[in-house]
Amino acid sequence: MSKTNFAEVNQEALLKIFTIPEAPDSTLGKIERHLSENLMGFLGEHIVAREKPLQEIEQNFQASSVPEQPVYVSDHTEFLLDKLVAHSVHTASPRFIGHMTSALPYFLLPLAKLMVGLNQNLVKIETSKAFTPLERNVLGMLHHLVYGQDEAFYKRWMHSAEHSLGAMCSGGTVANITALWVARNRLLKADGDFAGVANDGLAAGLAHYNYKRATVMVSERGHYSLSKAADVLGIGRRNLVAVATDENNRIRIDALREACEKVAAEGGKVMAIIGVAGTTETGHIDPLDQMADVAKEIGTHFHVDAAWGGATLLSNTHRHLLKGIERADSVTIDAHKQMYVPMGAGMVLFRDPGMVRAIEHHAEYIIRHGSKDLGSHTMEGSRSGMAMMVFSALHVMGRSGYELLIDGSMEKARYFAKLIDDQNDFEVITHPELCLLTYRFVPTRVKVALKTASAEQVRRLTPHLNALTRFVQKRQRETGQSFVSRTKLTPAQYGREPTVVFRVVLANPLTTQDMLAEVLEEQRQIARQATSLLGALHTELRELGLTNRD
Amino acid sequence: MSKTNFAEVNQEALLKIFTIPEAPDSTLGKIERHLSENLMGFLGEHIVAREKPLQEIEQNFQASSVPEQPVYVSDHTEFLLDKLVAHSVHTASPRFIGHMTSALPYFLLPLAKLMVGLNQNLVKIETSKAFTPLERNVLGMLHHLVYGQDEAFYKRWMHSAEHSLGAMCSGGTVANITALWVARNRLLKADGDFAGVANDGLAAGLAHYNYKRATVMVSERGHYSLSKAADVLGIGRRNLVAVATDENNRIRIDALREACEKVAAEGGKVMAIIGVAGTTETGHIDPLDQMADVAKEIGTHFHVDAAWGGATLLSNTHRHLLKGIERADSVTIDAHKQMYVPMGAGMVLFRDPGMVRAIEHHAEYIIRHGSKDLGSHTMEGSRSGMAMMVFSALHVMGRSGYELLIDGSMEKARYFAKLIDDQNDFEVITHPELCLLTYRFVPTRVKVALKTASAEQVRRLTPHLNALTRFVQKRQRETGQSFVSRTKLTPAQYGREPTVVFRVVLANPLTTQDMLAEVLEEQRQIARQATSLLGALHTELRELGLTNRD
Repeated sequence: MSKTNFAEVNQEALLKIFTIPEAPDSTLGKIERHLSENLMGFLGEHIVAREKPLQEIEQNFQASSVPEQPVYVSDHTEFLLDKLVAHSVHTASPRFIGHMTSALPYFLLPLAKLMVGLNQNLVKIETSKAFTPLERNVLGMLHHLVYGQDEAFYKRWMHSAEHSLGAMCSGGTVANITALWVARNRLLKADGDFAGVANDGLAAGLAHYNYKRATVMVSERGHYSLSKAADVLGIGRRNLVAVATDENNRIRIDALREACEKVAAEGGKVMAIIGVAGTTETGHIDPLDQMADVAKEIGTHFHVDAAWGGATLLSNTHRHLLKGIERADSVTIDAHKQMYVPMGAGMVLFRDPGMVRAIEHHAEYIIRHGSKDLGSHTMEGSRSGMAMMVFSALHVMGRSGYELLIDGSMEKARYFAKLIDDQNDFEVITHPELCLLTYRFVPTRVKVALKTASAEQVRRLTPHLNALTRFVQKRQRETGQSFVSRTKLTPAQYGREPTVVFRVVLANPLTTQDMLAEVLEEQRQIARQATSLLGALHTELRELGLTNRD
Repeated sequence: MSKTNFAEVNQEALLKIFTIPEAPDSTLGKIERHLSENLMGFLGEHIVAREKPLQEIEQNFQASSVPEQPVYVSDHTEFLLDKLVAHSVHTASPRFIGHMTSALPYFLLPLAKLMVGLNQNLVKIETSKAFTPLERNVLGMLHHLVYGQDEAFYKRWMHSAEHSLGAMCSGGTVANITALWVARNRLLKADGDFAGVANDGLAAGLAHYNYKRATVMVSERGHYSLSKAADVLGIGRRNLVAVATDENNRIRIDALREACEKVAAEGGKVMAIIGVAGTTETGHIDPLDQMADVAKEIGTHFHVDAAWGGATLLSNTHRHLLKGIERADSVTIDAHKQMYVPMGAGMVLFRDPGMVRAIEHHAEYIIRHGSKDLGSHTMEGSRSGMAMMVFSALHVMGRSGYELLIDGSMEKARYFAKLIDDQNDFEVITHPELCLLTYRFVPTRVKVALKTASAEQVRRLTPHLNALTRFVQKRQRETGQSFVSRTKLTPAQYGREPTVVFRVVLANPLTTQDMLAEVLEEQRQIARQATSLLGALHTELRELGLTNRD
């Protein structure tokens, strides 16, 4: 190779970084230990995030060109630790109780290095070999968890080339899109000279079957990924019909039936009904069994979005809450939520192993007909060996281990709800069905007043309380000792008035009762600092003539 | 908590796995070292895959239920090493030259553990903080690599809440779907009382604009993910128009123009033209600049699928091959291909930072309006901090480092093509434009005969040669010393007769010239064992009266 001497030297250095490092005392070995120690230090810190405005952090990420010259791994590592890791979010902190991202069991960390080091590509057996049966096994186990078919069923289908019990996905969104893609393609299937929606497109499909529109029915608490799915699949967000919920944020079966009838009466067709098993905002579970009845009656695809709540099936104590899920045509479960697996482990499961034919595709150089390549039935192409993380978590914790974790989280949520209700100046807005609840801070006098307030009085007080909740949540996040999230609900007990609430997810096994009490105390202290908001609230209270009830 | 004693003991053990392991001499520390050593051993092996039939491997992955009881991490680790790792594919082997998955630089492995350990979720800043500016920085650098805007441009847009220079995706398929989703939504945008395809759906969109169909134009060598995209987006595979290629597998501009005119004449509308920068099967690059002209003339979205070839832009020596890419509206690049980043690092880039508005979405509890949350402009929801791996690879190797790697791969491909052509019994089918080429084994007498064979003679010989190529590739893969892939092409020099070929991608920096020579020798030996196939071939040769030319 006709290179200058300088370039040759560089090339040697480059080849070296692709060559197996020798002993633990190699430079890379030392860097690895340093990184590990730092990571453990970070994960052991009790704060949730260091207070540093985003604008300041952005200053470290301004360079617009790819750096011209290489830097030493050690120097770059220091940069990462100082500028990135130090200003990451402590999602593993037991005081980080605001989102579904929680702590991981530590044994998954060395396995992550193994997974990345092997760098398998699950799209085809030629780049995955044993990882393909492993992934099919994971899908089989989850399928069994949901559908509970007998051994013969799994023996027949789990490793069958032309079938698939589901698909690993990067996350719940892709899983939901995949499920609705299957539903759409099965509804508008080939028929006579119509080659099917997959080939001829959606407009031709609707025209062929003489449907004015295709709709997807879901409760108004459905995840925003479903509206994304309706957009991506060409259905249109307007055709994702948001059905009213009851006072517990569960879809109203009468409203669902009515909405389905309306679609049909207007010449449309219901493409799918979606049950939510653990809404993102309140954690409630739709009445799946009754929804399955409706789906059966009108002959439509029944999908359950159990991205978050699906793990509850691992608890024999609580799996009854999801009764009816076994009647779903497809189910979404994210292992990176309540199954304690790292980010990127979504799954969709199909009751009927042949259902994936509706989205099957092949190519000449890979995923040929008859191969067991997983890529023929997935929306994504190249994919990592993430299934190994799910497989390992299932084995090392076992169903009984998961049961303890899940039961523990639910008990903790109930404990916290009781603790909140016992305070004079907090109130639960939605009680936990799983380990998620919402609440807000309400000054004592207001809490008393609300008990007997008229609809009009509620309507006038709520904006003040919303501002206060926003203030507390933001300040608490910025202070970085603990973190709860917030959302906006329309609680039945307050006349469906849009109400901002704190939202907590109690999935971290290390969160203690004391920590929960501290979270309330911290919020109380912050609220007391909101003097102008509190002033406005009390003025409103006086104007409404509600102060004397104190 | 009212648990039995047995459960309490278990719970303690469970909490322990979420608790930071102490010193390196802890059990987990020992397991980690053991895993690391085993991984290094595996990566150091010179075989590509151990010979073990898939059916036998499947025996280890038959259990259909989630295991009831936990197992020790150490026991499970042994299972993984023995049953999974040992039967994985050595994608890092310098003799694994069949696919785009190659070796990784070792410094990325400890970073992978860091990434997983931090378990950030890039959908929103509340679960990613500094990772969000980092990801935006990575997208900015790649945008600059493609579009080369000035500093002021990146200062203005890179960290702007309402804009995005692109999106990180799990892979090139999601990147391509995202690009076409943007193209579709921009074509069928809101207008008058039509609320846009995102809201009203595809059928309404086509009707509103009075388009009989929307089509996507791509060469017949386009990746199968594009046909998947056409299906998912409701366009229909039939409306993905495969345009004829020239003798170098590049789209014919005259044929493209003609196809576009035909669509328009029939009342359809071209939604996008896609240029391929590095076809998956032959590695050729479409004439992007001329395609940009056509796209401009007819006013359509121009997308470039540079999933594999995009990294070539890092080489000043060769980036001219992609001239015209800077005129694309959107570009797909996979960092997990020629950028040597682990699986799962796809990217789509948009020339205009406002383009992503076409697919924007928000939710109450996250990605609210005005936030810098990356989730408002991505197809996926929850995503890992994979951007860190791209960021680190760009810094530790630098543009100049990548240039050496890419230039080295291209030189190696040219060397191998020459080596093949120099053999009496091999022939190159497609020469490398980047580091990918295809070839086949052809017994000496056949090679000579083919030089003057008629179309009919070629037509009769080809199936025999195809069978031979299939045999050799399969046996070679099973033997596991080296791996090349295979595909089916329609080479111009053989009258477009469907021809099975070996396909090699020379991206591994550790692949040597000697190894390439050994691959040919191994294939020659395998071919000699195919006595019945060779017999049939020679019979055919005799019947065609071509033997005397030997």
